[in-house]
Amino acid sequence: MRWDFFLEKRAARADTLLKDLTDSALAIIVKYMLNYNGSLDLIFHALADPARRIIVERLSQGPASVTELAKPLAMSLPAVVQHLQVLEASGLVRSEKVGRVRTCRIEPAVLSTAEQWIASRRTGWEHHLDTLGDYLAEHPDE
Amino acid sequence: MRWDFFLEKRAARADTLLKDLTDSALAIIVKYMLNYNGSLDLIFHALADPARRIIVERLSQGPASVTELAKPLAMSLPAVVQHLQVLEASGLVRSEKVGRVRTCRIEPAVLSTAEQWIASRRTGWEHHLDTLGDYLAEHPDE
Repeated sequence: MRWDFFLEKRAARADTLLKDLTDSALAIIVKYMLNYNGSLDLIFHALADPARRIIVERLSQGPASVTELAKPLAMSLPAVVQHLQVLEASGLVRSEKVGRVRTCRIEPAVLSTAEQWIASRRTGWEHHLDTLGDYLAEHPDE
Repeated sequence: MRWDFFLEKRAARADTLLKDLTDSALAIIVKYMLNYNGSLDLIFHALADPARRIIVERLSQGPASVTELAKPLAMSLPAVVQHLQVLEASGLVRSEKVGRVRTCRIEPAVLSTAEQWIASRRTGWEHHLDTLGDYLAEHPDE
């Protein structure tokens, strides 16, 4: 009787523990997905502007100072800094200030995140077409 | 004298022709670049929204009706239609109405445009790193 009570209590504790674990695992997954989605939101938003793409284009050839980045853009330095802030918020660009010069560099891993998302959708569609092709080859009368 | 005059006139005409040609070529190039930039603006803007990415994700598995696309999204049908309009404006999605059903499909070439833009920037950066690596290997003391 005492043993049964002990076992039952242990089982109940295990249940609670498992539930807590599942809840925290779910919370982590949801949080991760929101972050991931958040990143893609910010990355694609950052790339949706021609001036910001010119900056990324320039940085893909090597690090550059804010002044260098501003040169080809027909806009004020504060406007360039605002674009850089959008790029930094997305993670696409990192910057570091040494003395009076702020040097910017590209973050290729973040660029890859966006590239891979698009590539997966494209290959998904190609797989769909392949499957459709196979089906039509097997059912020529339809 | 008459011959010189003739030659001079011909040269002047060739100059004008060349200038006209250069001007129209430039106009075409600028127009193309603006269009190209416009497309990238619209494509990346379309991909910057999680609901629109869910639609693209679904369509990468095959064509779907608007009702089907709306199912996993927690929003009204008019809201879904608005998202589809943004996707159609970017060229990422095409739709066709047969009877009362509007069927949407993905446009893989437009997906590729965005993918290639990002890939070129990423490989640009990798090329920069390679060049830097070569330079450092050749100048170990710097």
